[in-house]
Amino acid sequence: MSKLFFRYAAMNAGKSTALLQVAHNYEERGMKVALYTAALDDRSGPGIVASRLGLSRRAFTFGTDTVFRRAPLGPGLACLLIDEAQFLTPEQVRQLHRMAHLERLPVMCWGLRSDFRGEPFPGSVALLTLADDLEEMKTICGCGRKATMNIRLDGSGRRVREGAQVEIGGNERYRSVCPACLYRDDAEPAAGSPGLFS
Amino acid sequence: MSKLFFRYAAMNAGKSTALLQVAHNYEERGMKVALYTAALDDRSGPGIVASRLGLSRRAFTFGTDTVFRRAPLGPGLACLLIDEAQFLTPEQVRQLHRMAHLERLPVMCWGLRSDFRGEPFPGSVALLTLADDLEEMKTICGCGRKATMNIRLDGSGRRVREGAQVEIGGNERYRSVCPACLYRDDAEPAAGSPGLFS
Amino acid sequence: MSKLFFRYAAMNAGKSTALLQVAHNYEERGMKVALYTAALDDRSGPGIVASRLGLSRRAFTFGTDTVFRRAPLGPGLACLLIDEAQFLTPEQVRQLHRMAHLERLPVMCWGLRSDFRGEPFPGSVALLTLADDLEEMKTICGCGRKATMNIRLDGSGRRVREGAQVEIGGNERYRSVCPACLYRDDAEPAAGSPGLFS
Amino acid sequence: MSKLFFRYAAMNAGKSTALLQVAHNYEERGMKVALYTAALDDRSGPGIVASRLGLSRRAFTFGTDTVFRRAPLGPGLACLLIDEAQFLTPEQVRQLHRMAHLERLPVMCWGLRSDFRGEPFPGSVALLTLADDLEEMKTICGCGRKATMNIRLDGSGRRVREGAQVEIGGNERYRSVCPACLYRDDAEPAAGSPGLFS
Repeated sequence: MSKLFFRYAAMNAGKSTALLQVAHNYEERGMKVALYTAALDDRSGPGIVASRLGLSRRAFTFGTDTVFRRAPLGPGLACLLIDEAQFLTPEQVRQLHRMAHLERLPVMCWGLRSDFRGEPFPGSVALLTLADDLEEMKTICGCGRKATMNIRLDGSGRRVREGAQVEIGGNERYRSVCPACLYRDDAEPAAGSPGLFS
Repeated sequence: MSKLFFRYAAMNAGKSTALLQVAHNYEERGMKVALYTAALDDRSGPGIVASRLGLSRRAFTFGTDTVFRRAPLGPGLACLLIDEAQFLTPEQVRQLHRMAHLERLPVMCWGLRSDFRGEPFPGSVALLTLADDLEEMKTICGCGRKATMNIRLDGSGRRVREGAQVEIGGNERYRSVCPACLYRDDAEPAAGSPGLFS
Repeated sequence: MSKLFFRYAAMNAGKSTALLQVAHNYEERGMKVALYTAALDDRSGPGIVASRLGLSRRAFTFGTDTVFRRAPLGPGLACLLIDEAQFLTPEQVRQLHRMAHLERLPVMCWGLRSDFRGEPFPGSVALLTLADDLEEMKTICGCGRKATMNIRLDGSGRRVREGAQVEIGGNERYRSVCPACLYRDDAEPAAGSPGLFS
Repeated sequence: MSKLFFRYAAMNAGKSTALLQVAHNYEERGMKVALYTAALDDRSGPGIVASRLGLSRRAFTFGTDTVFRRAPLGPGLACLLIDEAQFLTPEQVRQLHRMAHLERLPVMCWGLRSDFRGEPFPGSVALLTLADDLEEMKTICGCGRKATMNIRLDGSGRRVREGAQVEIGGNERYRSVCPACLYRDDAEPAAGSPGLFS
């Protein structure tokens, strides 16, 4: 049976590289895949899945009004691969879950679990709740432990604690950290001090 | 470093048995654990963790106003074990996450991912978002596939599609099913037909 | 598709309890399972799967000359459950692997990875090499870390470093430890000293 | 605590890409890693870790006489990354296991589980037995299922069933397959027929 997969991670774990590798694995066997990424993440240009290792590739884009249906994807598709899946709506995740189970199309999603406040993204909640297979992609905190959380930095590298959930950015705006470093920084907001991460 | 663990499953996978086993493993080594279960799940009496295999044991109860703090738990505690963790509030999950990372107390939680409509429980969302270690406990659908979803039945064994999220019950009220059986039943609500599960 | 599963652990993680839980999960749905355990592990009597939590149940026994074939198991079997699977021969693991993939019978095995010298058991090597799904069952070392290794004790509780691979025994003869404690004890065999574990 | 990790897979799952991504993740944080690959795998030149996605990088090489010790690796090392780890000797795996646990250096290994006959490699047996964290990297069979086994092909693309365990080659010599396809091909060696895979 086909499954809905969710590979989750903090920022900078290698999610896009992993997606590009899976696409390659299928295509090398002569099998067809379809790639999607979020329209609102245009860091590398719209509709580009780009890896920090230097690889990139065009993909379809999805927005909040995209409807995922099997038929328009054409015949002979072996797998649907979705990057930046935290930006899916819960309804879209339901569409993908149904597609995997009623139309036997495997769907693999990569995305973040939580935002810079430790709050979940709507797409991540739905994927964590419904996916048949959850797998963490690991990355590291500066202290050497596994990073599971993300912090947002301002233009001067200072930690930002308030703001909109979505603000597209890369290494200059976000850093992945372990919970111990995160909470210790919370506990020590010394006046004038930039905190552990800045 | 200590971690926050979440072992999630559909109904009837053996969550309480697993909790009782972990408690036994610690105590056999002379280490102390504290057990909690939800006050509102009183199927086996208040404050009882009961396994369908016939084992049971007293536990502290938590309600929505419980505050999890390290100090009142006393010295020498090796692990905190929490059953029915889907009923935790997001704030309680944050308390447990901090406790694991700032006070080095491992916290292990067992709970459901989703309710009878496929919607997440508040405690499950927070645990799926923050836990350092997610692990699925598997159980089976009547068709032989892995069950990841739950359906609610009425007194006559008919599937119920609307209602309050929480309604405490056991095998007579709930059944765990795979997504394929779930969606096929959705698609075939023939007039007068009780559906696949009833 | 059916799979060959291997749930591995050090001593005293709760392997037999987990097997009994899975059997219960199937039977509660009206599905039939067959249980096997090693003939040479007769700690609880021959052909008994016994959990340290106090549960037990009769099972078929296998020896090195047992041939696992689908037909003699009878029709309508939903799953084959095997305890003490480290004692399987590599050929038996091949039989089970074929059964899962050619005859669509799920096979779940529980067993140890390594003996008291850190060397693998023949059945474990074959299962670790062929199983479609490997999952660790965790237990703890006296220091609080995850135990992955086993040590053997003599009648006076002193660590034994040489001897036959198989010597049936329970808590009085074996202890599960983490690698750090194991190697530190190796490094400190002070004359006349009983070591960390004795 | 540091751990010994083993990421195992059939051929062509993306092991080398994953290693290069982990190296990048560490270095991006200003942390130092050391890369090793097997001297005998010189498909891309000696001492090159090369990904089928087109990425490559120099690495130290290990042979059967290499001794892994912490000191010569120099100070400030954050992680040891080893490709083609199936070619490690059991003694080398022990050295790495001790290094992770006594000298707190995380060691991550990537490698195959089994050869073209379904038999384990010596390094894989030791890693599967001792690693603190086993994780499968998935790839696909031509039938769409997960591939866990490897077959060897001769120069004309015909399946080879006998021969030396090690014979370095890429897509032209090896194919990863699922057990169902593997055993079905075993069962149908029709005279003159090239089999499913050729």
